Amino acid sequence: MAERILILGGEAAGLSAASQARRAAPGAEICVLEAGPVASYGACGIPFVLSGEVAAMEQLVIYSRERLRQERRLEVLTGHAAVEIALAERRVRAATPAGERWFGFDRLVIATGARPRGAFPGITPGERIVQPYAWAEAARLANWLGTANAPRRALIIGGGYIGLEMADALRQRGLEVTLAESGEHLLSGLDAELSLGLEEAAQAAGVQLRLGARVSAIETGRSELRAATSLGEMAAELALDCSGLEPRIELAEAAGVGRGRSGALEVDERQQTTRAEVYAAGDCAESRHRVSGAAVWLPLGGVANQQGRIAGQNAAGGRPARFPGVLGSFAVRVFGLEAGRTGLNSREARAAGFRPAAVEVEAATQAGYLGQQRMRLRLVYEAGSEKILGCQALGAPGTILPRLHAAAAALAFGMRLEEVEMLDLAYAPPLSPVYDPLRIAAHKARKVF
Amino acid sequence: MAERILILGGEAAGLSAASQARRAAPGAEICVLEAGPVASYGACGIPFVLSGEVAAMEQLVIYSRERLRQERRLEVLTGHAAVEIALAERRVRAATPAGERWFGFDRLVIATGARPRGAFPGITPGERIVQPYAWAEAARLANWLGTANAPRRALIIGGGYIGLEMADALRQRGLEVTLAESGEHLLSGLDAELSLGLEEAAQAAGVQLRLGARVSAIETGRSELRAATSLGEMAAELALDCSGLEPRIELAEAAGVGRGRSGALEVDERQQTTRAEVYAAGDCAESRHRVSGAAVWLPLGGVANQQGRIAGQNAAGGRPARFPGVLGSFAVRVFGLEAGRTGLNSREARAAGFRPAAVEVEAATQAGYLGQQRMRLRLVYEAGSEKILGCQALGAPGTILPRLHAAAAALAFGMRLEEVEMLDLAYAPPLSPVYDPLRIAAHKARKVF
Repeated sequence: MAERILILGGEAAGLSAASQARRAAPGAEICVLEAGPVASYGACGIPFVLSGEVAAMEQLVIYSRERLRQERRLEVLTGHAAVEIALAERRVRAATPAGERWFGFDRLVIATGARPRGAFPGITPGERIVQPYAWAEAARLANWLGTANAPRRALIIGGGYIGLEMADALRQRGLEVTLAESGEHLLSGLDAELSLGLEEAAQAAGVQLRLGARVSAIETGRSELRAATSLGEMAAELALDCSGLEPRIELAEAAGVGRGRSGALEVDERQQTTRAEVYAAGDCAESRHRVSGAAVWLPLGGVANQQGRIAGQNAAGGRPARFPGVLGSFAVRVFGLEAGRTGLNSREARAAGFRPAAVEVEAATQAGYLGQQRMRLRLVYEAGSEKILGCQALGAPGTILPRLHAAAAALAFGMRLEEVEMLDLAYAPPLSPVYDPLRIAAHKARKVF
Repeated sequence: MAERILILGGEAAGLSAASQARRAAPGAEICVLEAGPVASYGACGIPFVLSGEVAAMEQLVIYSRERLRQERRLEVLTGHAAVEIALAERRVRAATPAGERWFGFDRLVIATGARPRGAFPGITPGERIVQPYAWAEAARLANWLGTANAPRRALIIGGGYIGLEMADALRQRGLEVTLAESGEHLLSGLDAELSLGLEEAAQAAGVQLRLGARVSAIETGRSELRAATSLGEMAAELALDCSGLEPRIELAEAAGVGRGRSGALEVDERQQTTRAEVYAAGDCAESRHRVSGAAVWLPLGGVANQQGRIAGQNAAGGRPARFPGVLGSFAVRVFGLEAGRTGLNSREARAAGFRPAAVEVEAATQAGYLGQQRMRLRLVYEAGSEKILGCQALGAPGTILPRLHAAAAALAFGMRLEEVEMLDLAYAPPLSPVYDPLRIAAHKARKVF
């Protein structure tokens, strides 16, 4: 059993690791260093604070430091930014509110997360530019939105799921919203066929969509800002840089912890890095994709929690736990729709060396006599073997998760189309049609009968 | 290829068989004999007509006879009741509106469905007693409910999902409802632990629940009826006999088609009966349970459609299609809740020779900061191997299907608890918590870490 477990990062992965380490090693010294002002909060909830659905940032806090200390005997130190990992001496130097301090360890868990990649080189948060991925920036924006001189026009840079959630949130707050996405389509995890439906919904919700607009500079004035883009200048009072993340790994790299092919920290299925005494989890670590087998970097909350738990278990010397990998499953609810996927989309499948085929259906999600609610479902599969590779869905609230969940289980076991078609999925007229959309898609793809 | 395909029964299984036979054998003569007044309607929608959610029985019709003739070239004869199957001569005698008539065939598909078992020996539908499983009886009740002398007090006999849907429907219409269930709990597909939640909801919806009440006789008067039960007399103006079904197989048996252990017609995975030229599908046929391997009889709409399609394909001599069996998946939405299951419950698992264990969780179905909506989930698994055997769910509308769908896929492949726990299920704060309830249940059952 490790006696001293030090964890860098106190959000999803870090606190999952700490909590699990406590269960596995009741007697260990466990200390969490969190650079930001708050630990243990649900960063995925930020858009819902901005929209007003959640009253205050504080409601995102899951466990207070006091509860973590009392109930789990975890020392969580906020405002403690690690600045050096000295592996040979098994200690970490941190900048703390009371000056620099060294923290020793037997096992180290790196859960330093990710940081905004930046819409263009040199972009930095400022009065009118917000990178709303973490507590301080989000709190600053939430506060601003509540003041008399709140912005009325926002430019959102990036049409991934965070950008979409932000666009939806600010529309709900009554702002004019322009969304600039450098690619051809929103939500690149989906194939274009499904993104189109999302683009229609965004426009119907009043979002000014600028696809193919690459932002190269922002000039900030007293009352507004002007963004130079490949589609011309765009003016707003607020720019939200939602152009994506990059893993925060420079401390680890400087200490000799290896980076993987995906650009994030290399880990094995036990979340162990290239250094035996160091584990990594969450947005700073890579994962193995269960369909392609490749190392991928997917900064997603669910993955972070699971990896953290496994890293904590193993770092504490508990019964070995293994992470079987990811499917890239995600979902988002915006503009009155839900969109999501699990597994590979067609583009990713081709890039992974598969020969993918795809089928798309628009299918009812209830018995016809109870409503005309429909959803779109796209099933990507391997030509020849007919093994399914991924599933994408777009539909009204409540429609996508049953199909994505079933597809995720099917993907985990490499099911073929025929097996998906023959699943015995629960049916009841108000909940689902007699042939579930997932089964209809598999049936259509097979073209057998 | 078969030249003449005759199908007995024109509901879910029969018309699925006919439509599939047409696709597989464009040149065949296909004839469907339906004893009732209407073919091709969604019998599962009857409760929603009675509740008023669907305006009229006619809305349950999926395809008119004209469309079936024009679009699929299917001859569907309603009011044609088969009265004799003469296998040696390959013909069926039917009572028709124009007298008796013989119909020849090369292949026969029996899809004669099921009939009410009857709450007690000798019960027959009458002025105040309705067995609301099929068109004529349901239409009679729907009509009565719309008249000035509509009943104000209903006694529902049977607390299976049909009885529950009827109770909910009649409560929505403002009737006083007493529900008499002979067993100890509602919805016997669930284990008692989950039925309890449903019982609370029924009572909260104003249903007078009489568990353990076995009805032995009904005396019908001019303005009301009195039911003798093991818990004393119960008075009402209407009795709905929802005490269950039995397969309608006497014609087939008389012709020498074999009955299986479940009491319904024995079929192989091609839906072929013990006679090579005869196929069977739907509520008159049995199925193989994918978890227990046993022959079971599960009169459910989804199964009927799927079996019908396979029977039609094979009867028409198309590329052989196989039915991998059932999981007993079902769902129901009543009293503002959804309940359902897939696989075996604890009782069924024990009866099937497993050594089952079970875990139950009450879990959030959204991120905590967005709401406190919760669901209950019960996972039944085999002690030792930790293979999951079944999953039951009870929760607010929209909560149960994602978990049941994932569990159904997991059951189809015999997943173990660990594999379920490690599923990469899509997460988004408004749709699901970061740890899905299904994963939480698997985690709790493992007790590993």
